[in-house]
Amino acid sequence: MAQYYSRRNINFLLYEVFKATELTKYPYFNAHDRETFDMTLDAVTQIGDNIMFPYLKELDRNQPELRNGKVAVHPKVGEYIRAMGEAGLIGAGFDFENGGQQLPETVNSLLGFIVMAANNGMMYTGLTSGAARLIASFGSEDLKQLYVEKMLAGQWQGTMALTEPQAGSSLSDITTTAFPQEDGTYRIKGQKVFISAGDHDQCPNIIHLMLARIEGAPKGTKGISLFVVPKYREDGSENDVTSTGIYHKLGQRGVPAMHLTMGDRDDCHGWLVGEPHKGLSYMFQMMNEARIGVGMTGAAIASAAYGASLQYAKERPQSRRLNEKSALDTPQIPIIEHPDVKRMLLLQKAIVEGSLSLLIETARCFDIAHASDDPEEKEKYHLMLELLTPVAKTYPTEMGLVAVSNGLQVLGGYGFTEDFPLEQLYRDIRITPIYEGTTGIQSQDLLGRKMTMKGGKPAQILFGEVSKTISEAEALDEMNKYAQILKAELARLQEVTMSLMPHAMQGDIERFLMDATLYMELFGIITVAWQWLKQGVVAKQAILNQNPEGEELAFYEAKIHTMKFFFHYEVPKTLGLAKRLKENEILTITTQKELAL
Amino acid sequence: MAQYYSRRNINFLLYEVFKATELTKYPYFNAHDRETFDMTLDAVTQIGDNIMFPYLKELDRNQPELRNGKVAVHPKVGEYIRAMGEAGLIGAGFDFENGGQQLPETVNSLLGFIVMAANNGMMYTGLTSGAARLIASFGSEDLKQLYVEKMLAGQWQGTMALTEPQAGSSLSDITTTAFPQEDGTYRIKGQKVFISAGDHDQCPNIIHLMLARIEGAPKGTKGISLFVVPKYREDGSENDVTSTGIYHKLGQRGVPAMHLTMGDRDDCHGWLVGEPHKGLSYMFQMMNEARIGVGMTGAAIASAAYGASLQYAKERPQSRRLNEKSALDTPQIPIIEHPDVKRMLLLQKAIVEGSLSLLIETARCFDIAHASDDPEEKEKYHLMLELLTPVAKTYPTEMGLVAVSNGLQVLGGYGFTEDFPLEQLYRDIRITPIYEGTTGIQSQDLLGRKMTMKGGKPAQILFGEVSKTISEAEALDEMNKYAQILKAELARLQEVTMSLMPHAMQGDIERFLMDATLYMELFGIITVAWQWLKQGVVAKQAILNQNPEGEELAFYEAKIHTMKFFFHYEVPKTLGLAKRLKENEILTITTQKELAL
Repeated sequence: MAQYYSRRNINFLLYEVFKATELTKYPYFNAHDRETFDMTLDAVTQIGDNIMFPYLKELDRNQPELRNGKVAVHPKVGEYIRAMGEAGLIGAGFDFENGGQQLPETVNSLLGFIVMAANNGMMYTGLTSGAARLIASFGSEDLKQLYVEKMLAGQWQGTMALTEPQAGSSLSDITTTAFPQEDGTYRIKGQKVFISAGDHDQCPNIIHLMLARIEGAPKGTKGISLFVVPKYREDGSENDVTSTGIYHKLGQRGVPAMHLTMGDRDDCHGWLVGEPHKGLSYMFQMMNEARIGVGMTGAAIASAAYGASLQYAKERPQSRRLNEKSALDTPQIPIIEHPDVKRMLLLQKAIVEGSLSLLIETARCFDIAHASDDPEEKEKYHLMLELLTPVAKTYPTEMGLVAVSNGLQVLGGYGFTEDFPLEQLYRDIRITPIYEGTTGIQSQDLLGRKMTMKGGKPAQILFGEVSKTISEAEALDEMNKYAQILKAELARLQEVTMSLMPHAMQGDIERFLMDATLYMELFGIITVAWQWLKQGVVAKQAILNQNPEGEELAFYEAKIHTMKFFFHYEVPKTLGLAKRLKENEILTITTQKELAL
Repeated sequence: MAQYYSRRNINFLLYEVFKATELTKYPYFNAHDRETFDMTLDAVTQIGDNIMFPYLKELDRNQPELRNGKVAVHPKVGEYIRAMGEAGLIGAGFDFENGGQQLPETVNSLLGFIVMAANNGMMYTGLTSGAARLIASFGSEDLKQLYVEKMLAGQWQGTMALTEPQAGSSLSDITTTAFPQEDGTYRIKGQKVFISAGDHDQCPNIIHLMLARIEGAPKGTKGISLFVVPKYREDGSENDVTSTGIYHKLGQRGVPAMHLTMGDRDDCHGWLVGEPHKGLSYMFQMMNEARIGVGMTGAAIASAAYGASLQYAKERPQSRRLNEKSALDTPQIPIIEHPDVKRMLLLQKAIVEGSLSLLIETARCFDIAHASDDPEEKEKYHLMLELLTPVAKTYPTEMGLVAVSNGLQVLGGYGFTEDFPLEQLYRDIRITPIYEGTTGIQSQDLLGRKMTMKGGKPAQILFGEVSKTISEAEALDEMNKYAQILKAELARLQEVTMSLMPHAMQGDIERFLMDATLYMELFGIITVAWQWLKQGVVAKQAILNQNPEGEELAFYEAKIHTMKFFFHYEVPKTLGLAKRLKENEILTITTQKELAL
C-alpha cells in the first residue's frame, strides 16, 4: 500500500542526499545504523497502512462532539496511539534515560511525515511527544517519574495549551493565572482555546502543558510560566479542567479542538515546570521541532494528495492529444498525457519533494547542533536551524495548499466530490499555515529576527552551504545551467535583503517588516531551488556512476526532470517578488486614507 | 444588511466607470434608465438580505440526500426561486416577447453577482434562466409556449445536462443517444453526471436541456443535438428520467448535483431543440453568458469573504504596532492595523473589485454586440466579448480562491472553524475554476482560439481599448506613473504572444498551448490592471472635479489606493510568467522519461 508517500523518495533523500547514516558518528546517535532507521520507518509505515490510511475518510465524517462534558473520538485513534506507544515511536527521539531511542530528528521527523500522510486526522501522538519532551527537559524528577513513561507508552495524552480567546498570536497577552499554594503547587484559573486533543475518551488521562502567569508576575512575555495541568491528578481525583466547548472545523476533523476552562470550582491544580517566568523560553526551545513537525504535516498532506491525483491521472481517459484532436476514432488518452495535467502533477511533485528535502535539511541541522561536541560546528548548525525553521514551517504549508489545490483540479468535477480524498485533503491542509505560528508570524521571525541575528551570521552560513551545492553542480554538464541560475538567485536574495536592512537600522520595524510575507515567499523559493539542485546533483551522479536501469533509472531521470520543472516554472516568481520588495511605496501601513476599506 | 457586497462599488462601476445608462440609447434597451436599473438591483438585494444571506450556513449544513428516488432541498430554496420569478428577475435579460425585460446583461449579470454573494448555495435560478434561454432562442413555438413562461416565473426548474461519466471536458465523446420516433419526438438513453439542480422537491417539474446524439449521427462534436427532456411530460405523466445518484460535495452544498439515468424503461421522451446536429453550436452561443455567470460567482463568493474578514479585522484586537511592541500597558490594536493583515485585505479588495470590473466590461461587450445596429461596432464588441470571456471566467475564480484563502487567514484559527463563514466560502468557491470549462480549457480557448481568431483582430481591438485608458491616465498627475507601467505590460504581453505564435503556425498545437494556463495568468493580471487603471482614472477625476468629502472622498481615495496596491503587488508577477513563457524548455509534453511520475 503506502501510496500516500514514496518510500523510494525517502530513501533517496535520507541516504543518498543527506547521508543520514553519517549522523551515527556522533556518540549520541551511535546506537543507530541504516538498519535501525529502516526498521523504524517500516514500523510506522505498517501502522500507517493498517490503522491509519484506511480510516482517513471515516475519521473525517465522524467529527467528535462534546456531549455531557465528554468527547468521544473514533476508536481507531486509541488503537493508533497504543500501537505507536508500544512500538516506541512516540518517544523515539527522546534520550535513553527518558525512555527514548535517541533517534536522530532527521529520521524521527519523517515518522511524523509518514503518519500525517497516512491520516492527518490522527495528530495525537505528536502532541503527546511535544508535551512529554517539555516535562523531560525542564520538569522535576517527580514530574518526569509521574508522566513521561506513561505518555511515551501511549497511555496518556499530552497537549500544548497556549492559546487564549483574547490572545491568539500574541502570547504576551495571556491572562490565565496560577495562584501559589503553600504545598508548592498552584491553582489555575483561566481559559484556553483551540487545544488539539484537549479532551477525548481514548486515553484515561490528558496532560496539559499550560502557559499561565503566576499571580503578580510581570506583564508581557517575561511573566509567563509553564505548568503541568492533568485532567486527573495523581490520586485519581478529577482536576478542575472543564471542556466548555468543541470547535467544528474545516478539516483535521479526526482530532477535537477544545475550549477548556480551568478553575471553575477554584480547584484546578497545576505543577510548575522548571523555574517561574521561564515558560515561554521553554516553549521556544521546543518550537523548532514543533515547527518542523507542522511543515512535515503540510508536506505529508500534499504527498497524499499527489499520490491520489497521480493515480487518477494515469487511469482516467479523456480526450486526445492536442495535435491529434480530430482523430475521433482513436481511443481517449489517460489525462496524464495532457501537458496541463502533467504540469499540475509535476508542480505537486516539485512542491512535495522539495519541501521534504528542506525539512530533512532542517532536521539534520537540529541533530548536529544537538549531538556535536565541536562548539564551532554546534553553533553553525544551530544558527542554520534557527534560520531555516520558519521557512521549513511555511513553504511546505503555503505551497502545500497550492499543491493540493492542483491535485484536486486534476480530477476536475470528481475532485470536488466526496468520492475522492482530494476534497478532504484540501480542507485538512488549510490549518497548517495557521497553527504553530501563522505565515505572517513566521515571516516576521525570518526577516525580523533570524536575518538580523548575530550580524547576519546565520544567513552567511546558509549562503555558504548553497554555494557548495552550486560548485558541485557546476562540475556536472546538465547541472551547470541550473547552478548559474541559483547563483543569480542567491545574489538577488542578498540584494533584496540589503535593500531592506536600512529600515531595521533606523528602527522602523513596521516598514522593515511590512512585506515580510513576500520576503518569506522569495526566500522559500530560493531555498527550495537549492534543495532541488542538491537532489539533481545526486541523481545525476547516480546515473553517471551507478549505471542504473529500468525503474531506478526512471526514478533518477524523473528527479532531474522535476528539478528542471522547479527551476523553469517556480524560480521565475522571484523576479516579481524581488521587484516589489525593492520598491518604496508604502501601502499597508495604516494611514487615515484607507479607512474606507 | 448586504455586507456581502458593496452597493457603493456597484454604483461606481456601473454608472461612473461603465456609464451603463448610455446603453439605453440602443433601441433594444430604451425602456430602461437608471431608475429601472436601481429598482432591479434593489429588488434582488432585498431577496438576498431576507431569503438568502441569513440561510448561508443552514443550506450548507443540510446537504440534500437522495431518498427513495427523491431529493429534498431546503424549503427556503423554493421561496427564493418563486421570489425571483415573481419579481421578474429570472428572465430579466430576456426579450419582451419571451416575457423578459430586455435588461442589459451589464445589469443582469450583476443580479447573479448579488444573489451568489448572498448565498451561493442557491444557484438554481441561473440554471433555469440558461435553460429557458436555449428554448427561447432555438426551440419551436410549441416548446416555447410550453416551457419558457413557467420557467421564468420560477415555477419550473431548468438544468443544463451536458457532462457524462466518460466525457467530462471532452464533449465530443458523449454517448447519450436519441432514437427518432414516428411522431417526431425522440427516446433518450444514457447517463448524465454533475447535473446541478438535476432533481429537487421545490419545483413540480424539472426541465433538462440535454445534449445527445441522434442514432447514427456522425462522431465528434458535429453529431450532437440538443433536446428538452422534462421530468414530467405535458400530459403529467412521469418521464423516464431516474435520479440514480447524488454527489456529496466539498461546497455549494445547497444545490444537489445529480447523476441521472435516462431510458431505463425505454420510455424517456425528448424533444429536439432547433435542427439536428447543431446542439453544441447552440450551447456555445449561450456559453459567453454562462461563463460570465461563473466568473460572477467567483467574484461574488470572494466578495462575501472580503466582507466577513474585513468586519473581523476591524473588531478583533490583537497585539500592538510593530514599532510599539514593548508598550504592554497600551491596549491591543484591531488587527486591520497590522501591515500583513492590511495587505491581505487589500489583496482581497483588489481581486474582488478588479474582477467585477472586468466582468462588467465583458457583459457590456455582450450588450453592445447584441444591441448595436452598426455592423462595425457590432463586430468590434463581439470580438472583444469572445476574447474577454475566458479571462472573465478564469481570473475571478482562480484569484477568487486566493482572495478567500487570504480572508480565512485574516481570522487565524477562527477562520478554520465553523463559527465564521470563511471556511464555507473557501469550500464553495473551489468549484468555480472547474465547472463551465476548467481553467485549463479556458486557457486553451484564450490562446488557442481567441488570440488566433481573424488574424488576431480581437487582441488588436482590446489593445486599442487598453491604450485609450492609458492615454486618459497619462493626463492625470498621480495616474501617469501607472499608465506607463501598463504600457510596458501591454508590450510584454505582445512580446510573449509573438514568441508563441510560430508554434501555432507550424501546427504544433501541443507546444503552442503547453503553458496556456500560465499565459492566461499573465493575460488576466494585465487585463485586470487595465480595469484598475480605469477605476483609478475615474476616481481621480471625481476627486478633482466633484470635490467630494467624508465617506465619498474616502471611497475614491480607497479606490486609488487599491489600484496602487494592485500595480505594486500583483502586476510584478508578470515578470516571472513572461520569462517562463518565452523559454524553450519543454517539460510537460509526454516523453518516456517521466514515466516514473
